[in-house]
Amino acid sequence: MSDKLIIFDTTLRDGEQSPGASMTRDEKLRIARQLERLKVDVIEAGFAASSNGDFAAVKAIADVIKDSTVCSLARANDRDIARAAEALKGAARSRIHTFIATSELHMEKKLRMTPDQVFEQARLAVRFARNLCADIEFSPEDGYRSDPDFLCRVLEACIDEGATTLNIPDTVGYAVPELYGEFIRSLRERIPNSDKAVWSVHCHNDLGMAVANSLAGVKIGGARQVECTINGLGERAGNCSLEEVVMALRTRRDYFGLQVGIDTTQIVPASRMVSQTTGFVVQPNKAVVGANAFAHASGIHQDGVLKARDTYEIMRAEDVGWAANKIVLGKLSGRNAFKQRLQELGIQLESEAEVNNAFARFKDLADRKSEIFDEDIIALVGDESVTSEQEHYRLLALSQHSETGERPQASVTFAVGEQEHCVESQGNGPVDASLKAIESKVKSGAELMLYSVNAITSGSTESQGEVTVRLQLGGRVVNGVGSDPDIVVASAKAYLSALNKLHSNADRVAAQG
Amino acid sequence: MSDKLIIFDTTLRDGEQSPGASMTRDEKLRIARQLERLKVDVIEAGFAASSNGDFAAVKAIADVIKDSTVCSLARANDRDIARAAEALKGAARSRIHTFIATSELHMEKKLRMTPDQVFEQARLAVRFARNLCADIEFSPEDGYRSDPDFLCRVLEACIDEGATTLNIPDTVGYAVPELYGEFIRSLRERIPNSDKAVWSVHCHNDLGMAVANSLAGVKIGGARQVECTINGLGERAGNCSLEEVVMALRTRRDYFGLQVGIDTTQIVPASRMVSQTTGFVVQPNKAVVGANAFAHASGIHQDGVLKARDTYEIMRAEDVGWAANKIVLGKLSGRNAFKQRLQELGIQLESEAEVNNAFARFKDLADRKSEIFDEDIIALVGDESVTSEQEHYRLLALSQHSETGERPQASVTFAVGEQEHCVESQGNGPVDASLKAIESKVKSGAELMLYSVNAITSGSTESQGEVTVRLQLGGRVVNGVGSDPDIVVASAKAYLSALNKLHSNADRVAAQG
Repeated sequence: MSDKLIIFDTTLRDGEQSPGASMTRDEKLRIARQLERLKVDVIEAGFAASSNGDFAAVKAIADVIKDSTVCSLARANDRDIARAAEALKGAARSRIHTFIATSELHMEKKLRMTPDQVFEQARLAVRFARNLCADIEFSPEDGYRSDPDFLCRVLEACIDEGATTLNIPDTVGYAVPELYGEFIRSLRERIPNSDKAVWSVHCHNDLGMAVANSLAGVKIGGARQVECTINGLGERAGNCSLEEVVMALRTRRDYFGLQVGIDTTQIVPASRMVSQTTGFVVQPNKAVVGANAFAHASGIHQDGVLKARDTYEIMRAEDVGWAANKIVLGKLSGRNAFKQRLQELGIQLESEAEVNNAFARFKDLADRKSEIFDEDIIALVGDESVTSEQEHYRLLALSQHSETGERPQASVTFAVGEQEHCVESQGNGPVDASLKAIESKVKSGAELMLYSVNAITSGSTESQGEVTVRLQLGGRVVNGVGSDPDIVVASAKAYLSALNKLHSNADRVAAQG
Repeated sequence: MSDKLIIFDTTLRDGEQSPGASMTRDEKLRIARQLERLKVDVIEAGFAASSNGDFAAVKAIADVIKDSTVCSLARANDRDIARAAEALKGAARSRIHTFIATSELHMEKKLRMTPDQVFEQARLAVRFARNLCADIEFSPEDGYRSDPDFLCRVLEACIDEGATTLNIPDTVGYAVPELYGEFIRSLRERIPNSDKAVWSVHCHNDLGMAVANSLAGVKIGGARQVECTINGLGERAGNCSLEEVVMALRTRRDYFGLQVGIDTTQIVPASRMVSQTTGFVVQPNKAVVGANAFAHASGIHQDGVLKARDTYEIMRAEDVGWAANKIVLGKLSGRNAFKQRLQELGIQLESEAEVNNAFARFKDLADRKSEIFDEDIIALVGDESVTSEQEHYRLLALSQHSETGERPQASVTFAVGEQEHCVESQGNGPVDASLKAIESKVKSGAELMLYSVNAITSGSTESQGEVTVRLQLGGRVVNGVGSDPDIVVASAKAYLSALNKLHSNADRVAAQG
């Protein structure tokens, strides 16, 4: 069996399905480029048939990514598969990933189909897909809870029809490592043509075991592809974390004995980009990418670390891309220095106009903040790409005041399309007042589900605040992100950014877990 | 073998060692009470010999907790052990947990002792401890990376000396489930008197496998105690999460077949209390206790959930204590209603004066916020207990203003001991200006390491902001937490709370991982 393990990243598909994690086309493209730098083998870019927006995102990614295979999800029907193939047309290497549920529960309650109907649909879907693309992945949704006999029958037929990868999802995060590994081993042993396909694992983290389950699928089950997401992003408790599974394979190569092509020094930049784009914070005690992952507090530990680094460290921070904050640019830096730093950070803006726009914001920021860090630049560009796309609402000016014993008040000037509005409101605090002022004009009726702030850089109270606002309206959940040294301004920007996302159409069908 | 699994919570000891997670005595006491409500079997309350503050915290917890065993850590020397025994004197049930490193790396580089010296010290420590307490746990630090022959020799001697629990830490988070489970099984098989003690697992999450490793130690290894922390708090990537390991044991009782005494409906309240006290956020995609853990975003999933709940849910949100926000109190609620709600929330204030103080704050909040949720009350009381203890710095009044194009400014009035000061400053934003104003007077020189804000309640822009400020000064790291509907006021409170923690003494020796 091959000792090469395929890393299949589904941050842009399964990760993005997380409530509040939806991303714009440009955001997805930026993350796809980072995934390519990370050297993931396969990027699942989206679910082309689910909406026009998703189609455009998959197509945009397929058109620019050269080093990774680009994949689109598709339900097991001809329309979905044809849409996926169309979106992937420009790809250097493409894959269609088709799925249908095979557990009794899902077939009966969700699909309302008999097992024979599901069998037939799976087989025909793979056959149809194989005519459009040489690289076909098939997933039996809720596979781990499916009847093994039926599952073997479906999978054998899919291999016969030309599926090149078979993925066994633990859709609900119910597995334990030993049982999941044995399950995959027994499927491979029982299916006569199992050696004609690569076996893949796809685990959810509901019981905190997604990484261990995935690795058991590899070690015990013989799988050679792991599906995962940056920061473990994904519905509910999320998917298997790319950073954890990759570092476990690398740190314990003595046990797993497999080759992984990932450039691990790109892990922390990827983690930050995904966190900043979605507004999903990474907790400090998160493995590999958490702020504390490589820190030591206790006296004994510090002493131990000084005496011999490996008394408490099994990985090196620099191997996963942690580096000290560097002051990279300041007030006097010119356009060329800025552009060069963007290149070094791997940020590619789409046009010279965008570069100019970002540079103008950079100068504005440098006027107010003496030290500009890499994180500031990433945030600035992120902010830029969010607002440049769908700028129905734009912040123009804000003034606010609060004083103990008085009711805080804010005055906000913003553009709605071509029109400029100035509105005032009081509130519980200056942020509340600013958001109420905006809402008094926009009347979106959206419910605020989450409000959080993180300082972008540490080490100084001069840090910019990055605010995430999550809104819900009629079942849709969107995140808006805004950054500014003034937290009230950042909040107003984040709120307008969320309103812009609600304003743009994004209704779509979503997919398997 | 017993089918009862002992849950040993070390949030207050190993969890608290996390940089920035240090807690005051009153905070620890509040969490210990919640752990008792959660029905954990053993509460590791601290490391009594490490500082006077830790001694006082262990003693305070030992004096009030009745239903859980209270444990103190102690290095393998008579002084540490005697201190632990003294702190535990008032406990209904007590345990002394002594440890010494047994891996070659740790013995040579950290302890600078020969294996024979370590063997002798471990044996004598257990003997000494057993004379002071009937319930003795011994941990060979870095046990999983220790030479098995040497480890067997040490553990056998410790059992002979009367150790009742043997804990095998994976101190650096290096283990994989299968190997860790087999390691513990082989120790138990090789040591002749192994059936005279309960075996325990203690796993760290550096490779994302702490829960799976712990469960393999139980299932394969035959361990009957799991050491864990709320939210997986702990150094670096943290410890095994209590909530994940407990829910895995419960959800997969078909596989594990063990009894766990935890009242799972107290899990989410415990998670929130630990997060609010330490300022460590829980990421939305955290299993069991993350905000998204039970949410479904995608169209297909929502449809599926409607058709049959168990298509995508293996646990019920209400079983782990998730409940909809309830409006519990308002402006017109009286002191009795407030006191009763405190009781229902399991909050016990130390004196009537504290209740009065909290009630006054509640009335003040109710004047500014029409709907008061449980979370508001918890924050209010938390805020109270932080400030009541060490109120060297106290916020009296704040006024601030920011306007696009102008430099934000703030004026802060606060008490330093008995003296009142009013200071003004400009800054990048109103928060920066307020913190700079305070710092201009206090001149702490502390470095701001983290600034974050979370809304305490969702569903309304009227929510209070809860701000966490992490400061570092001369190697010490403290968190300050402050809450207020006005984010600038909450920030100033958080900063002063952190300064209060820096002002109180807290130098101490810390411990094994």
